[in-house]
Amino acid sequence: MMTRRTILGAAGAAAAAGSATGAQARTLPDRLFLHHVYFWLKAPKDPGARDALIAGLRKLAMASDIIWSHIGVPSPSARGVVDDSYSVSWLATFSDRAAEERYQVDPIHLKFVEECAALWERVVVYDTEQAD
Amino acid sequence: MMTRRTILGAAGAAAAAGSATGAQARTLPDRLFLHHVYFWLKAPKDPGARDALIAGLRKLAMASDIIWSHIGVPSPSARGVVDDSYSVSWLATFSDRAAEERYQVDPIHLKFVEECAALWERVVVYDTEQAD
Repeated sequence: MMTRRTILGAAGAAAAAGSATGAQARTLPDRLFLHHVYFWLKAPKDPGARDALIAGLRKLAMASDIIWSHIGVPSPSARGVVDDSYSVSWLATFSDRAAEERYQVDPIHLKFVEECAALWERVVVYDTEQAD
Repeated sequence: MMTRRTILGAAGAAAAAGSATGAQARTLPDRLFLHHVYFWLKAPKDPGARDALIAGLRKLAMASDIIWSHIGVPSPSARGVVDDSYSVSWLATFSDRAAEERYQVDPIHLKFVEECAALWERVVVYDTEQAD
């Protein structure tokens, strides 16, 4: 299994390479804490607002406690159980809840909230511990 | 980058090793489609119902189109934006939407629904395309 140092090193290398994707290829550890946030924008039909939020999330993805993250947009669906009304999805994964709590007060996260909070109208967060 | 065959091979090896965790260590490709399902059980205080659903999800995780999956339970939170009212979280990742659509009709998925649907009262699904 990769060590934490190796994982973070790979993240840094991907960032240095200027990856334009919402996530980098990554080897995950066998246990993860999920922090999945769905954003509803004040201006859901404004691509500029969506792009600004996505740009903010790309910077947020550099927070050091994040093991792997994914930035996305809804896949439209006609199925009643599918909620495709949100504007942007942000999934960040951590080693455990303590790491997610550190991320909450990371200056990178605080700056993201300061710069981007005016864009959204509503946020729903699901925090998930891996089942034993 | 790992080929699809290599990824599935690693999954098979982990399954053969009888991993008891909700996810296996895995190298992810650089683009993924997310299918995140939150279940609210009819009997949310019954650990047996929760364990039965988790056991069903462990079998579902063997569906061949899934690249990586995670089974979890809510991490309690006092933050108003955090919804910790669900019973079980199921995150499955795919190469793209077409793969998720194949999974919907995979016999393993149909059997999961048949065996477990009586356990839940409500399901919310978020399907997410990775941002460009």
